[in-house]
Amino acid sequence: MLQSPIDKLINDISKLPGIGRRSAERIALFLLKNKDKNLLSLIDSLNISYKKIIECENCGNIDMQNPCNICSDSKRDKSVICIVEDVSDLWTLEKVGFYKGLYHVLGGTLSAIQGIGTDELKLQNLLDRININNVKEIILALSTTMEGQTTSFVIADKLENFENLNVTRLAQGVPIGGEVHYLDENTLSTAFESRKKIT
Amino acid sequence: MLQSPIDKLINDISKLPGIGRRSAERIALFLLKNKDKNLLSLIDSLNISYKKIIECENCGNIDMQNPCNICSDSKRDKSVICIVEDVSDLWTLEKVGFYKGLYHVLGGTLSAIQGIGTDELKLQNLLDRININNVKEIILALSTTMEGQTTSFVIADKLENFENLNVTRLAQGVPIGGEVHYLDENTLSTAFESRKKIT
Repeated sequence: MLQSPIDKLINDISKLPGIGRRSAERIALFLLKNKDKNLLSLIDSLNISYKKIIECENCGNIDMQNPCNICSDSKRDKSVICIVEDVSDLWTLEKVGFYKGLYHVLGGTLSAIQGIGTDELKLQNLLDRININNVKEIILALSTTMEGQTTSFVIADKLENFENLNVTRLAQGVPIGGEVHYLDENTLSTAFESRKKIT
Repeated sequence: MLQSPIDKLINDISKLPGIGRRSAERIALFLLKNKDKNLLSLIDSLNISYKKIIECENCGNIDMQNPCNICSDSKRDKSVICIVEDVSDLWTLEKVGFYKGLYHVLGGTLSAIQGIGTDELKLQNLLDRININNVKEIILALSTTMEGQTTSFVIADKLENFENLNVTRLAQGVPIGGEVHYLDENTLSTAFESRKKIT
């Protein structure tokens, strides 16, 4: 019979994104069966993360220091800011490793339904950063969903008055490794319109 | 950039069953964004589970007490033991709620590859329980996989010498709600062979 501590554990696990009730039960059992290895280690990680990980006031990244190690890295190009929706997007770009500028993590996209306006996305902070650091380029690396594109347009609109500031967005087209007959209509027509001369 | 505490957290999460690297990143970010709600509550649950949950020496169930609340419930029928592979099977049966006997949790099935023999499944403990408690029926509720069925046969074989002990297994056939044209060959032929007269 389910006892309350196991029940609470399963409940807490099932609140994690992408985890259903059955998976939560499976994970809880796994942890209880591997108490001294996996359970202890996980408790330790969560405790350290709770105590040590903070949000960078500058860019919204999470790190053990504020400003984060990207913002405080003197080798990075402070004249370029790449705007991403979430820290996971920043991680993805950092893993690939070619980008050497700074970031601005929005923490979401504009959404009337979820009540996320320009305040929640820390846009004023972005404008301040552009002013103070003499930023030359803003790269909008948002999702090509309806919400992502709307957010891109709103941000681009707010940046219109800055002189000598290039506002760019990621190229849209056929993904590398993509097969043309699997592409959706929108991607295909976008790729056609933006076709490039082979040189 | 990934810092070591975040890295360790993602690593620990990705070791949980059914969780890949991407899901682990998503879960870690979710927890770090909801520190004071979900993260704290999860740490609390895991800590309590680590300290309080123990295995029942009698049946292998996990609980806050040993013997577990099923073994020590005077209302349950001590003359019937249902053998299950895992605690999750016990939970499933308890949720449905019709079974009023005791359990014996094997903690797996016999597996030469994984080195799980009769010792690991605590079969001697089962034999002792049958002797001491004058058990009248053993219900084998194992999976109808190759491993589950092999284990069932081995256990049934070991119980042959007990007089006045009924060894039963769950009925096999068409699952309720099942559509005949979707059934696999084995299920269909088993259901045919075990057909019952409509009374």
